[in-house]
Amino acid sequence: MKNRITDLYGIKYPIIQGGMIWVSGWKLATAVSNAGGLGLIGAGSMYPEVLKEHIQKAKRHTDKPFGVNVPLLYPDIEEIMKIITDEKIKIVFTSAGNPKTWTSFLKKNGITVTHVVSSVKFAKKAQAAGVDAIVAEGFEAGGHNGREETTTFTLIPAVRKEIDIPLIAAGGIATGKQMLAAIVLGAEGVQIGSRFVASEESSAHINFKKAVLEVQDGDTMLTLKELAPVRLIKNAFYEKLQALYKTCPTEEQLKQLLGRGRAKLGMFEGDLEEGELEIGQIASIIEDIKPAGEIMKEIVKEYNQSIDRIKDYKLPE
Amino acid sequence: MKNRITDLYGIKYPIIQGGMIWVSGWKLATAVSNAGGLGLIGAGSMYPEVLKEHIQKAKRHTDKPFGVNVPLLYPDIEEIMKIITDEKIKIVFTSAGNPKTWTSFLKKNGITVTHVVSSVKFAKKAQAAGVDAIVAEGFEAGGHNGREETTTFTLIPAVRKEIDIPLIAAGGIATGKQMLAAIVLGAEGVQIGSRFVASEESSAHINFKKAVLEVQDGDTMLTLKELAPVRLIKNAFYEKLQALYKTCPTEEQLKQLLGRGRAKLGMFEGDLEEGELEIGQIASIIEDIKPAGEIMKEIVKEYNQSIDRIKDYKLPE
Repeated sequence: MKNRITDLYGIKYPIIQGGMIWVSGWKLATAVSNAGGLGLIGAGSMYPEVLKEHIQKAKRHTDKPFGVNVPLLYPDIEEIMKIITDEKIKIVFTSAGNPKTWTSFLKKNGITVTHVVSSVKFAKKAQAAGVDAIVAEGFEAGGHNGREETTTFTLIPAVRKEIDIPLIAAGGIATGKQMLAAIVLGAEGVQIGSRFVASEESSAHINFKKAVLEVQDGDTMLTLKELAPVRLIKNAFYEKLQALYKTCPTEEQLKQLLGRGRAKLGMFEGDLEEGELEIGQIASIIEDIKPAGEIMKEIVKEYNQSIDRIKDYKLPE
Repeated sequence: MKNRITDLYGIKYPIIQGGMIWVSGWKLATAVSNAGGLGLIGAGSMYPEVLKEHIQKAKRHTDKPFGVNVPLLYPDIEEIMKIITDEKIKIVFTSAGNPKTWTSFLKKNGITVTHVVSSVKFAKKAQAAGVDAIVAEGFEAGGHNGREETTTFTLIPAVRKEIDIPLIAAGGIATGKQMLAAIVLGAEGVQIGSRFVASEESSAHINFKKAVLEVQDGDTMLTLKELAPVRLIKNAFYEKLQALYKTCPTEEQLKQLLGRGRAKLGMFEGDLEEGELEIGQIASIIEDIKPAGEIMKEIVKEYNQSIDRIKDYKLPE
């Protein structure tokens, strides 16, 4: 299977590893790229100098394509964009912001731009802004998400109907079966986050990785919708939030409880009580921490097996 | 494709039409059964005498298997169960309640019992209660739903891992592609609701059917979570609810605003402002009102085409 996604990025498998904050450094990105997928460095949790270092290390550890994910609300965005062009990065995924702002700048610098959206409306806006591809991310995904709460099962066909450019599905995808289901729904590739959190190369704290393995059905929830909706594990911090919600809090009170640095505290420093532990619903079926290359192999193998399994399942007409 | 679902109910296609309140009468159920699926009469919105009439009419209009959906919280449940056994119904879907209460009674009467769940926990409980099959319904589904907010993409693989009995996927399924995606994820059949609301034979008011066609991405929301979570169209009633939520209401105040009979008012009587309009997210891709038999044919055709399309999409290993 070669398609518009493998062609666009010059990769073997249409599998993109999400550029997650505190998780996706050069180690994870190069492990995925070396295994035939597209690794992404997550700039969202990096100071500009740290990002530069990760890019330079990634270049030394792979000769395959890799990219950088940039949340467009990043405060020092100009500095980040300068590093990206100085370092001659060729693939950028943008998220959390208006794709109009930076797409033409990036394209002028010869960069392939992919924008992450969570609704049909924003998919159309991204296409109109001139991006090369779209990631459509369902409600089940970990971390920050949209207000429409549209799930992958609904979002992929709905976006596919409205846009012509290449489409990548995200949210709820951790196995080859799920990858094939996304392709059946109309996606041309998949972006996988949670599964790679529980990889050996991810920068997530070991406590957080182990917590991901413990997640059961119903253990994550989309919350903080008044600020920016985020899916996280229901831990002690989440319970404090729930207690505050019972008092009908103002946005200011929510911000105060949230404070600063909770994602780092939880995901990078391993504080499972007070930290923010961003992960997708699909963590409920993740059972082991493995090298990212093995995860890639398993996904590809199960994907192919699933095609073999269903090709004889035709219905009488 | 013959499988455990087609064998269990004695049907041609593993496609079940959801037994929806105010929508699923004998006309819709028999149209679906005559087209090779399994039609269900929705007892939830029927007085016992009305249910009896629908069952008797259904018998006159099809010689194919059909069933009845019974919400276990129905106030006159004993009367409903008596009608079901008196009328020698052979297939019952139960929902909204504890499957322990009625499963053995139904099984003793030679009835195949399928229970609808929205979480892994309740799927295991239903299997333990001795039901013959399970419908696992994702967060994107219309009407009443679970508190875990697990989406179809996550729920199907997660339930599949934990139960051995036949599994039917529901939530977000309106087309053949979506049916195939559900099968790929591990389901053996699908239950389809929203698509059949917009059928000629559904008992939904024409205003409601037309409103379903107008639904765009983001136009439905799961709300009233403090009482019983329900997905509905964001209409004037929903906006009133949102205004009330801003005041940090008690459950009592929510109940008072909800009142009684809003689902009938909206779905059966066509009041699009004050009624409760229960529909799934997937309504955003539904574009026409058709005979249920044509909907069935389209689904089967697209399902087969999707198999043909993806069988050459294998990845190099």
